[in-house]
Order: sequence, then structure tokens, then C-alpha cells
Amino acid sequence: MNVFIVHAHPEPKSFCSALRWVATETLRAQGHEVRVSDLYADGFNPVAGAADFGERKNPDYLVYALEQRHGYEAGTLAPDIQAEVAKLLWCDLLILNFPVFWFSVPAMLKGWIDRVLISGLTYGGLRFYDRGGLLGKKAMTTLTLGGRAHMFDGPASIHGPLDDMLRPLLRGTLAYTGMSVLPPFVGWHVPYIGQAAREQLLQDYRHRLATLETLTPLAFPSMGGFDDQLQPKSPRAG
Amino acid sequence: MNVFIVHAHPEPKSFCSALRWVATETLRAQGHEVRVSDLYADGFNPVAGAADFGERKNPDYLVYALEQRHGYEAGTLAPDIQAEVAKLLWCDLLILNFPVFWFSVPAMLKGWIDRVLISGLTYGGLRFYDRGGLLGKKAMTTLTLGGRAHMFDGPASIHGPLDDMLRPLLRGTLAYTGMSVLPPFVGWHVPYIGQAAREQLLQDYRHRLATLETLTPLAFPSMGGFDDQLQPKSPRAG
Repeated sequence: MNVFIVHAHPEPKSFCSALRWVATETLRAQGHEVRVSDLYADGFNPVAGAADFGERKNPDYLVYALEQRHGYEAGTLAPDIQAEVAKLLWCDLLILNFPVFWFSVPAMLKGWIDRVLISGLTYGGLRFYDRGGLLGKKAMTTLTLGGRAHMFDGPASIHGPLDDMLRPLLRGTLAYTGMSVLPPFVGWHVPYIGQAAREQLLQDYRHRLATLETLTPLAFPSMGGFDDQLQPKSPRAG
Repeated sequence: MNVFIVHAHPEPKSFCSALRWVATETLRAQGHEVRVSDLYADGFNPVAGAADFGERKNPDYLVYALEQRHGYEAGTLAPDIQAEVAKLLWCDLLILNFPVFWFSVPAMLKGWIDRVLISGLTYGGLRFYDRGGLLGKKAMTTLTLGGRAHMFDGPASIHGPLDDMLRPLLRGTLAYTGMSVLPPFVGWHVPYIGQAAREQLLQDYRHRLATLETLTPLAFPSMGGFDDQLQPKSPRAG
């Protein structure tokens, strides 16, 4: 299996960064090929903008998604985007490895999503969810956060379920492009736990990585349930 | 009232950018003071990292939130962050004006959130939600997207309610810091609509801006319902 890890943490010695190394090592030991984009180390540019396009379909008015389509077809996307797209297309499993900033991904990783998940290639028209452009690939999020599990345990908890907070990422991004989304691997309360608990988390992550095939992907809408206007089909018509 | 608009769109001639101008004009005509950060025009740096801190509490190991606290107290945060924090503290109403990228904010705006909503000042310890550091301020999101309203109309719709997709922003960010969160102003289907529909949207926005006082803020958890461990209080104890 080809695995592409996109890692976004500003501190190379962080526990989150250790998870990236554990994944690389564990997956390679299993015989998988692993490539990594370490966005902070690479100085990745997260700003989606006019500079991403070597030649513009419309030089006077920027519609980012339209220029993505044009640039991808014409081969004129910025070289850093092309390199990331190639790794994305190469992989069978995409792992996003990040610390939770504001119940979501750091801007650095959001910029990777904005710039690399090209319109036309990864989605477009009625090609999304289970008709998305990345159908057949798997995706997993590996994340660390300060909060504790009980703060995200069910609808009565202080923040509600973590998957609900991660909805634009799990559903609106990864599932939207057609990928099969595995349950997140979560490092709870990381800044506040000691060495033994951290070692246990690394061990849990090794186990997770060794048993990926046994995981049930999260459930998302199927396009078959909706008509061409994306209205839900009536139960009788469905 | 002091209004701070944070605008993040890469095309100055976009409809989203027009909303920013309409807000500035309409609010000033009502006698309000308005300041604007145009993140793309300003070349804002959205990357939260070591370079944000002139002097480090711990030069060997970066914990971003801890360095935010230290940098704010010591006055050693990067000057661009200090300038944004000053505008944030000055305002009574914060408006985030942006196009929806991947059911969420563009990385440019996410970086503003990551870097400007300083730990210790805007939240910290048990100071969040209705005990957050920005209590007393209002926040509103003004956003444009390609999707149509029926795609976000109720749980059976293809994407589910828009507020659910925006949960990490509305609840996890704006409400988390204590701000009173007004319902989003949404420009549906913007890339596909004609001039008349766009003029109508601008008119709707002017009306919205003239009637802000009449809006009912969105509802979020109250810290009074949770104990010191952030476990829900039992109904009897509550």
C-alpha cells in the first residue's frame, strides 16, 4: 500500500511529530511505501491565490476553482501544488497528522487542502461523496489536542462529539472527494499527560496502524439518494 | 458601535469583496466606526509558528498557546499580531467576511484565527463559552458559497445544515471566546447567479446590517451547566 502522510506541526520535537515518525516506521516495517510532506519543515505556502497559476484562463478575474481546473489540465499549476497532487494521486491511504487548532486543522494544513485538492480532479459537478474524484482511496486523521475525551463524549458534553466538530474535514473534505474515511486516531489531553501515557498512546497508534484493514469507515451520504438537483429522492422514488 | 471586518478573498472584484464594501459603507452611514483587515491585500501571514514570538518563554520547545500567553503579557508578539489584537479588542462587533473553501474558512482566515485569538486573552483555563475572554462582543460571519440553500436544508439534505458544517467556527471559535454569535449572512450559489440576484443579495445585506440589533444570537452551552472537570452537572445538582 502507498501511504502519504501530510504533517503540520510547528515543533519537530512535539508528540504530534512523534506520531508521524511512528507511522512512517511502523508502516514501512509492514512493507508499505510511505511518503511524507512535512509542511512546516518544507516551508509550504498555505495561501490559495493568483500566484498558484502560471497562466490564467481569466487574467482579469480570479475564480480559484476554475483556475485550478484550467491549471491542472494545462499543466500550469505552481510546481509545489503539482508535487503534492502527484503524491496524492500515488497514495492508497492519506494520513493527515496535525494538532487541533480551534477545533480544526492549523491554517498550514487548511492551505494544503485549499490548494492541493484540485477542482475537476478531486471533485466537480456531481462528482462528490461516493462519486468523488478520489474514490478508492482511504483517508485517516491523526490528531492531538488539549481536551479530554469526556469533553467530547456525546451531545450533552461541553463540546459535543469530536466527529461533529471535525465535520467540515471528515465529511466536507475527505468524504466529499470520495475517499473512504477511517475513524480519527485521537491523542487526548496531550500537553498535560506524562511520559507513560505518551508511550501508551504511541503503542495504541502502532496497533491502530497494524489493524487498519479491520476498521469500519465512517458513514456519509450516498449520491444515489439524491436527484440531479441534489434534492433528496422521495423514499418511494428512491 | 465599533466594527472590525476581517476580509479574506483573493479577488478584489469578487462579490464577496463587494459585501465588504457594502458593510463598510452601510455601517459608517449609520454612524458606526469601521476598521477593516483585508488579509489578502495586506499580505497577511497565516502561519502560526516560532517566528510569531520575539522572545520565547521556552526557546527549545514550542507550545504555541503557552508562547502566545507569554508573548502577550511581555509585549513581544510579532507586530502584525499585536496590530490585529488591538483591533479585535477595540471592536464591539467582529465580522468575518469570506468565501467558503471546503465548508470552512480559507487558510488565510484560519491563520488569522490561529495567530490573533491569543490564549490567555481570548480564552484559557475555564474561561470559554459564556466565560470567554471576549464576552460582551458580538460576532457575525458573512460568507459566499457555490452551493444552494436546499443542499443545506435540514438533516436529510445532501450536506446537512450549514450551521453544522460551520460548527468549529461558530461554536468552537467565536462562541468559545465568549462572543455573542449572530446568524451567518449567506450568499448562496454566488458563482452561478446573475446581476439582478447579486443586487438583491447586496440589498438583503444592507437590510441585515441595519437590523443587527433585532437578531437573536445562536445558542451555545453555558459553563454553569458543567462542573470544574467540565462534566455536565446532574439535573438535580444543576
